Amino acid sequence: MLGRVNHVAIAVPDLASATQSYRTTLGATVTEPQALPEHGVTVVFVTLPNTKVELLEPLGDTSPIAAFLAKNPSGGMHHICYEVEDIIAARDALKGSGARVLGDGEPKIGAHGKPVLFLHPKDFQGTLIELEQV
Amino acid sequence: MLGRVNHVAIAVPDLASATQSYRTTLGATVTEPQALPEHGVTVVFVTLPNTKVELLEPLGDTSPIAAFLAKNPSGGMHHICYEVEDIIAARDALKGSGARVLGDGEPKIGAHGKPVLFLHPKDFQGTLIELEQV
Repeated sequence: MLGRVNHVAIAVPDLASATQSYRTTLGATVTEPQALPEHGVTVVFVTLPNTKVELLEPLGDTSPIAAFLAKNPSGGMHHICYEVEDIIAARDALKGSGARVLGDGEPKIGAHGKPVLFLHPKDFQGTLIELEQV
Repeated sequence: MLGRVNHVAIAVPDLASATQSYRTTLGATVTEPQALPEHGVTVVFVTLPNTKVELLEPLGDTSPIAAFLAKNPSGGMHHICYEVEDIIAARDALKGSGARVLGDGEPKIGAHGKPVLFLHPKDFQGTLIELEQV
């Protein structure tokens, strides 16, 4: 079921400072910030040769990463996103295995314009997993 | 400086259960467990098309992931490892930028037999970063 690691997402309290860490200190290729108000984040992509890291800063009052940053004020790794070929088939197989899909179980259009689902971290060793159909 | 994402490491309290999650529930290719007593972990590799995820279970009384699991009993994403071409040059550039290298600052031979260093998570948005010379 699992394909490529599409991205690793890191929640950060200060996107400008995080961008400087990755661009200047770590010498990585970093995009300009993109505000995604419908997803409650502003995002910067760190482009690596085989995948990408996404730096996420909360945007707005109902950001989905606000609770995580309240618990982890310095920031931290928030989720890992795997690509799947067929997100409905993946969801149905996962639910059949007893894994919990967050929300109402229907794929949403994610930050890359593709259908995504999130799996409950308690079913996967404390790791929030995003699945993205590509 | 940063090359490929070599792996994302997930600390888990029960490697057999975690292996089953990734192999059976998520349908990924998973290796047999390898005990690495000199690194204080038993590891299983989840092989993805573009990188890998490492599931780490503590081994022995002085495991470097014991404190993390005490704080995160269900497990969680522990570190991300980036490849670098020259770990001494990377270290010296990072130290010149004010970033803190863990331990005595000298590369150790990591779980893959290559020189590695870890960077202080407080300098990188709460994320523990491993650098591996490949």
